[in-house]
Amino acid sequence: MAGVVSSRGCHKIRASQIRDLMDSKLNVLFDCDGVIWNGETVVTGAPEVVTLLKQRGKRVLFITNNCTRPRGSYVTKFTRLGFTDVAEEDIFSSAYCSAAYLRDVAKVEGKVYVIGCPGVVKELREAGITMVEEETDAPTGTIYDYPLDPDVKAVLVGYDETFDFIKLAKACCYLQNSECLFVATDPDPWHPLRGGRITPGSGSLTAAVETASSRKATVIGKPSRFMFECIASQYNLEPSESLMVGDRLETDILFGSNCGLDTMLTLTGVSTLEEAQFYKNSDEPESKDFVPDYVVETIADFIDAYGEEEAG
Amino acid sequence: MAGVVSSRGCHKIRASQIRDLMDSKLNVLFDCDGVIWNGETVVTGAPEVVTLLKQRGKRVLFITNNCTRPRGSYVTKFTRLGFTDVAEEDIFSSAYCSAAYLRDVAKVEGKVYVIGCPGVVKELREAGITMVEEETDAPTGTIYDYPLDPDVKAVLVGYDETFDFIKLAKACCYLQNSECLFVATDPDPWHPLRGGRITPGSGSLTAAVETASSRKATVIGKPSRFMFECIASQYNLEPSESLMVGDRLETDILFGSNCGLDTMLTLTGVSTLEEAQFYKNSDEPESKDFVPDYVVETIADFIDAYGEEEAG
Repeated sequence: MAGVVSSRGCHKIRASQIRDLMDSKLNVLFDCDGVIWNGETVVTGAPEVVTLLKQRGKRVLFITNNCTRPRGSYVTKFTRLGFTDVAEEDIFSSAYCSAAYLRDVAKVEGKVYVIGCPGVVKELREAGITMVEEETDAPTGTIYDYPLDPDVKAVLVGYDETFDFIKLAKACCYLQNSECLFVATDPDPWHPLRGGRITPGSGSLTAAVETASSRKATVIGKPSRFMFECIASQYNLEPSESLMVGDRLETDILFGSNCGLDTMLTLTGVSTLEEAQFYKNSDEPESKDFVPDYVVETIADFIDAYGEEEAG
Repeated sequence: MAGVVSSRGCHKIRASQIRDLMDSKLNVLFDCDGVIWNGETVVTGAPEVVTLLKQRGKRVLFITNNCTRPRGSYVTKFTRLGFTDVAEEDIFSSAYCSAAYLRDVAKVEGKVYVIGCPGVVKELREAGITMVEEETDAPTGTIYDYPLDPDVKAVLVGYDETFDFIKLAKACCYLQNSECLFVATDPDPWHPLRGGRITPGSGSLTAAVETASSRKATVIGKPSRFMFECIASQYNLEPSESLMVGDRLETDILFGSNCGLDTMLTLTGVSTLEEAQFYKNSDEPESKDFVPDYVVETIADFIDAYGEEEAG
C-alpha cells in the first residue's frame, strides 16, 4: 500500500466497537454544527445520544467556534431542538473561552478593544472585562479624527457584521504598542449561507488586522489548544479519558490531535471519509493530525451501541 | 567573511561611478515617496535631477504603489513641488496599471466589482472599464439583502477608507465563481501616518478577501512583474537598459530584481544600508533579490555626477 502508514486509524466503527471505546472514556466533547445539528435542523437521534451518554455517567460538553451567540442563547436553541438536559456550563463557545482567556490566562488589567458581534460583547461583559465604548455619535473622517483610549491593553477580533475601515485602523493603532495583546475568537475563514452565498468569518477579519499591524493573533477557537485548556481548567479533564467528536478535519479533528484526545469524525457535516483517507495516505508529516481515530456515519450510531448492550 | 557572497553588489557609488552607470542606461524608473519626496516635502535637488536626466536623453518614469491619486493629480503634485517637466504619461500608479491590466491583459468582458478609493475608480473609468454601481440607498441588513450583479467578471481590491463587512462579503460572493478574476492594486500592508498612527493598506483589505474567499489575488503593484510589463508594453523598455531607484528593499529593489533591472537604493526613505547589508550577508537564497546593485545617500548625488562631467 502506498503512503506512510498513519498511527491514527480512520477506523469506521459501529455498535459494540463504539461501546468498547466509550467504556474507556469519561468525557465526550461534541462540536455543534454538522454534528448535533445543521443550522436549525437537529441530527436525528442526537438528543437521545446526549441523554444516553449522561445516563451512563459520561460528561458531555459542547465545543463551538461560533462566537455569535452567548451561552444562554445556546441553551434556548438546545431546548428548541429537543435536548432536555443541556446546561449553560456544558457549552464552550469561542466567545466564552476568549473572555475566560483574557480574564484568567492573560489577566488583562485595562480595557479591551473589541471587534465583534453582540454575542462576544455579552460574554466579555459577563466575565467582568472592561471594553472600549464605541462612539455612538461617530465622527466622519479619517483615523486622525478618532480618539484612541490610552488604557487599551488587548484587542479581540471576532465575527462582526459592522466591521469597517475605522475599526480596522483603530485595532492596528492599538497594536502598535507591542505590549497590547492580540487575540482572535476563532480562525474560521468563512461560513456557508443558503443559496450558495458565503459570509466572511472571524479569520478573515483577523487576517486584515494581522496584515496591517504586522502582528499574529493568539487564536482561541479550535484547532488551538487554548479552548481545551479553558475547559480543562474548569472540569479537570484528562485528555486520555476524552473523545472529540466533530465534522471538520481541519478544525475538530486537528483540535483533538493537538490536545492529545482520541478523535471521531461524523459524516453528517462538512468533511468526507474520502478526505480523511486522503490525509491518511498522504506523505506529508503534518497530515496525520487531520486523520480521525474513528469514523461514524452519524452520532445516532451511539444509540445502537447501547441498544445492543441492553438487548444482550 | 561569513555568508554567501551575493551576486549583487550593494555598492555605495558617487559622482563618476553614477555617470558611468547612467551611460549604460536609457531608462530611469523612480519610486516616488521616500525617493523624490516625503509626503509634501520634496527631496532636495530631485527636480534638478529629473531635468538633468531628461536633458541627457534618458527616459524618466515614476512608479508608485499608491493607488489613491489619479495620474492627473500626480502631475499637479509634481508641479507644486517644483518639477517642471513631468507629464501624465511618465507616471505609473498601481491604480493606472490595474486598469491597464484589466483592459489589456485580462481583457475583462463584463463588470468589475471595485473595493477602492475614488482614485482607483477614476482610473478604471478612464480606461473604459464598467464597474458595479454601489447602492446609493444601501439596505441595512445582511449580505442576503444585497443584490449581486450577474455580469461581474472581476473583483479589484485597493485602498478604501469606506471598506466594510458588506463590501467584503460581496467580493467573496462574486469570487465563489472560479472564473471571476481577483486582482489587487498593490500589496502594501499599511502606511505610516503622522503622530505614530498607521492606516491599513490595500494588502490588509486583500488579506481579508483572500481568507474569506479561499482565493489568491493577482497583485499588480511592486514587487510584482505586472507593473513593469504594463510600462514595457507602452514604452518598449529593455530591462538591461533600465535602472530602478527606490527606498524600500522589499518592494522597489525586489521589483527591480524580479524584472531583471539594475537596482539602486536611496537612503532618503524607509530602508537603511544596514538592512541591505543584512540581506547581502544572509544565507537565505531569496535574500539576494532584496540586495540593491547600488546605493546612494540621495538622488541629489546625480547632480554631482553630471556637475563633474561639465567641470571636467
